[in-house]
Amino acid sequence: MSSAIHRRIQELRKFMEEKGLHAFIIPSTDPHLSEYPASHWESRQWISGFTGSAGTIVVTREKAGLWTDSRYFLQAANELDSSEIYLLKGGLPLTPTIDEWLGKELGKGEYVGIDGSVYAAKEAFSLTHKLNMKGLHLISDYDPFGTIWHDRPEIPSNPIFALPEKYTGESARSKIKRINEAIGKAGAQSLLVASLDTIAWIFNIRGNDVKCNPVAVSYAYISKDETVLFINPKKLTAETTDYLKSEGVILAEYDKIYDYVTRLKNSVCLDANKVTFKLYNTIPGENKIIDMPSPADLMKSIKNETEIQGFNSAMERDGVALVRFLMWLEKAVPEGNVTEASIPGKLIEYRSRQDNFVGESFDTISGYGPNGAIVHYHVSEESSLPIKPEGFLLVDSGAQYFDGTTDITRTISVGPLTEQMKKDYTMVLKGHIGLAIAIFPQGTRGSQLDILARKGLWDNGLNYLHGTGHGIGHFLNVHEGPQSIRMNENPTTLQIGMVTSNEPGIYRVGKYGIRIENLILTQHETTTEFGEFYSFKTLTLCPIDKTPIIKDMLTEKEILWFNLYHKYVYERLSPLLTDKEKAWLKDKTNEI
Amino acid sequence: MSSAIHRRIQELRKFMEEKGLHAFIIPSTDPHLSEYPASHWESRQWISGFTGSAGTIVVTREKAGLWTDSRYFLQAANELDSSEIYLLKGGLPLTPTIDEWLGKELGKGEYVGIDGSVYAAKEAFSLTHKLNMKGLHLISDYDPFGTIWHDRPEIPSNPIFALPEKYTGESARSKIKRINEAIGKAGAQSLLVASLDTIAWIFNIRGNDVKCNPVAVSYAYISKDETVLFINPKKLTAETTDYLKSEGVILAEYDKIYDYVTRLKNSVCLDANKVTFKLYNTIPGENKIIDMPSPADLMKSIKNETEIQGFNSAMERDGVALVRFLMWLEKAVPEGNVTEASIPGKLIEYRSRQDNFVGESFDTISGYGPNGAIVHYHVSEESSLPIKPEGFLLVDSGAQYFDGTTDITRTISVGPLTEQMKKDYTMVLKGHIGLAIAIFPQGTRGSQLDILARKGLWDNGLNYLHGTGHGIGHFLNVHEGPQSIRMNENPTTLQIGMVTSNEPGIYRVGKYGIRIENLILTQHETTTEFGEFYSFKTLTLCPIDKTPIIKDMLTEKEILWFNLYHKYVYERLSPLLTDKEKAWLKDKTNEI
Repeated sequence: MSSAIHRRIQELRKFMEEKGLHAFIIPSTDPHLSEYPASHWESRQWISGFTGSAGTIVVTREKAGLWTDSRYFLQAANELDSSEIYLLKGGLPLTPTIDEWLGKELGKGEYVGIDGSVYAAKEAFSLTHKLNMKGLHLISDYDPFGTIWHDRPEIPSNPIFALPEKYTGESARSKIKRINEAIGKAGAQSLLVASLDTIAWIFNIRGNDVKCNPVAVSYAYISKDETVLFINPKKLTAETTDYLKSEGVILAEYDKIYDYVTRLKNSVCLDANKVTFKLYNTIPGENKIIDMPSPADLMKSIKNETEIQGFNSAMERDGVALVRFLMWLEKAVPEGNVTEASIPGKLIEYRSRQDNFVGESFDTISGYGPNGAIVHYHVSEESSLPIKPEGFLLVDSGAQYFDGTTDITRTISVGPLTEQMKKDYTMVLKGHIGLAIAIFPQGTRGSQLDILARKGLWDNGLNYLHGTGHGIGHFLNVHEGPQSIRMNENPTTLQIGMVTSNEPGIYRVGKYGIRIENLILTQHETTTEFGEFYSFKTLTLCPIDKTPIIKDMLTEKEILWFNLYHKYVYERLSPLLTDKEKAWLKDKTNEI
Repeated sequence: MSSAIHRRIQELRKFMEEKGLHAFIIPSTDPHLSEYPASHWESRQWISGFTGSAGTIVVTREKAGLWTDSRYFLQAANELDSSEIYLLKGGLPLTPTIDEWLGKELGKGEYVGIDGSVYAAKEAFSLTHKLNMKGLHLISDYDPFGTIWHDRPEIPSNPIFALPEKYTGESARSKIKRINEAIGKAGAQSLLVASLDTIAWIFNIRGNDVKCNPVAVSYAYISKDETVLFINPKKLTAETTDYLKSEGVILAEYDKIYDYVTRLKNSVCLDANKVTFKLYNTIPGENKIIDMPSPADLMKSIKNETEIQGFNSAMERDGVALVRFLMWLEKAVPEGNVTEASIPGKLIEYRSRQDNFVGESFDTISGYGPNGAIVHYHVSEESSLPIKPEGFLLVDSGAQYFDGTTDITRTISVGPLTEQMKKDYTMVLKGHIGLAIAIFPQGTRGSQLDILARKGLWDNGLNYLHGTGHGIGHFLNVHEGPQSIRMNENPTTLQIGMVTSNEPGIYRVGKYGIRIENLILTQHETTTEFGEFYSFKTLTLCPIDKTPIIKDMLTEKEILWFNLYHKYVYERLSPLLTDKEKAWLKDKTNEI
């Protein structure tokens, strides 16, 4: 048993006892409901040792459990192996939900704690209701980690910078004007924003507070009367201060947000999924709260011409780096010197030589053989497998450039494959193409299209349990909303200018994983008597391994797309390559 | 201008003036929120002349408007042609919603009337909120039609009958026990039901109160303590009274429901979409209302083995009648004596010779040429076109049998076709097959599968604006929930035993309409390491016209399904046919 984890849980229990709490729930987020929080708020990881991006720890006086989703079942089982924390596989029919579990573990009238300052308002409302149904009470006033986490990292105070309009395509002033118009239409007078990527997009600022996510810890308030950015002054230079003021922005200290909100007197638009319970409850009752998906989030997801040009240009540079990486890999694997752990550094090496490179957009997933079946695998020195010249290597990686964010998965045959591997690979490819060539009417939601990527798998009794596509930021978070392409319903329709991933996969536990991912742009296709129809343009430029394809399994239409895509990749990348690289790419993109 | 309609609207305006109302909203439903109400409640049709099944009339002191959906745009335009009522095409981006329109037509502080006893509670809550946002007030106390509709039909008092267990497969007592268990799990102590088909299913009774729908006007209350059926005693014989009592049912007068509900003291489960505003508001505040989709509706949609056997048997008899009808049609059209209006009677003639036939399950849609493009076309003597030996005839019809309900659409080439007609027909067929052969994991919703029926159309910039599939009752309503297969989200997952329609189409306004409809049963397909997968079994037994098919447009898999389906139709129907009919069917089901 891990003694550090045990000691931390014991300290939390002591804290709970002092405060009269019988359980404590620790989500994986922060005051901004970030998917990836700054290290100051990684309390769930600190207390459990579980490093996945999604998961909730619940500690009672006797037990401790982690709820996570299918992406992390294998990883969580490994990481919790030596601890006293039970793994509860979320979403499976027999797994109790947190409130069901607490209803059994606790006695009527007992108290459950959360830190309301890192808990989404809507989730806390729902939790309150569910716990009350079971005779339990919710207390949201305490942050135990302020007390028990002695070497807790500081809230980051890294400097921000302004992203010029040549990259953003629209001034902060213009975005703020559009936001005021949109909230006006919804009957609101102001907008409260806690989401760091939304704030970065609105103000055309970028930061360095969260690994891979170029955001800055801050809050924003927007109304016709005033626009306020709440940010630690240490993060500002004279230049960025001047820039923000010139866009009409008032600056205030980060933690003054609560005082400010206390004085509000109007109709406040906010998204209760993206504002904390504490911040929500700070708004005085005389205000009218209009809880809706943030209009700014929708605007952010619809990329303008400049942003799309930036994506196109970033894709070329990313593609060149990937071609060089794949060439290196092809040579290095048979020489026997490649391990899973050596891949991320190699990718950074090639990408960092490209213009406008800022950093990775997420930790590279480099899974060889059985590790490829761990959907969000994070290689460590202990887990790292040597890449032998056989089977599949799955590499999911991405970069931040000043002009765009990339996210690409390729599954590479590093040596001989079984028939099963080839069949699985071809089915995943069929799904990828099925979505890539979709044509659909205006008003279509991602959940309607999701099946196009799964149909070939479902026909054979196979499936993957993650989403098919997520939105992606423009030099911002690699996961952004509001659109998605997944089995779950999401009311957001796909709109022209949205950039989304297309990443079907298949995972054979203990054997291998396959995923093929490109980014796709929603575009106008045609207008007929039946309305306007949209289609996707694939933005990612990188060959897809031909070796594993069973050509007979592909339809003519699928083969046509595949060959045209490869032709396009060659046309776009070859002018940027050396003759040797060109020849290699020519071979990789030859028709099947 | 129609003077009868004008007089009726003027009478309503007089009523409105007396009551101080500035507008009145008339939906198309009844106290049971029926899709097809008994004639007593057809006030929207009476006041407007519009005969479609869906639509809402709004009358102000100066104007009158009808909101309806795309199925009825053409029909409503025709029927409202000579009246003063504006047609407002619901669902189109530029059409105002009713509350938006009232916000513009009325002044602040003015009063909008509805009859709360024929208005869904949830819709009335939403309407109240929207009108309040616009400074308008909702008054729900008046039924103007009790005053102004002088020759209003009585509430029907037709006798009911008990449907034996050899058809239902489960006793009322057993269903009531299961319902009490289900509501108990949801934390409720009782269930309030106003839906007539749900009541008929629970108690294994059928009636004759609504054309084509074998239901009886009634309410039900179910709890562990008592089960009460509120029904006019005139509808009961000594036999049905004894039967109901023997199942543990207490009988009460129909209109005693309000008194009864006033005395409730518990947790009441109901579906606020399926209970009226008036009934909802009658429940005393001390009760806890658990508003959720009715567990009884889900149970009703999952057909048991007896019901499925009944469907199978009814399909054979329906198929035999349809073969005879199609043979007659083939001969009669060239002779020049067939009109759209002669089709429904001919279908009844053939079907009524079959065992267990009760009546039509809906008014036959028989649309020739341009009339085929009117999705819910109802032929009248004036509109009826002669069927010439060219182009398409669309026939959508169905029957009620004691052992099942049928609903089938065939589009028949009655003579030469254009290339465009053939191409459209083949695309619709591809969609029909795409859904018919779907394999999908447990937990899939209809909205995820809908695209399978549309994909071929979308690829060519075509679409149809109605749903692809609706649930269907077992000797009950031809449209029933809770599942559906359509573009709109519906959280109900498709479950083993559900019977749903598969009916893609295409409608060329002013030219022709094509729809191909079978009923499909959700069944177990396979279980793999990725979970359980379901598929559909097509229940309907009737040849699909081969003449219009462009075989080159079909994939091998599609051709295989088509030929296997026809082989199956022949195998199932031929033992029931004469030699001459057999030979005809053999020809129609020969391989393509």
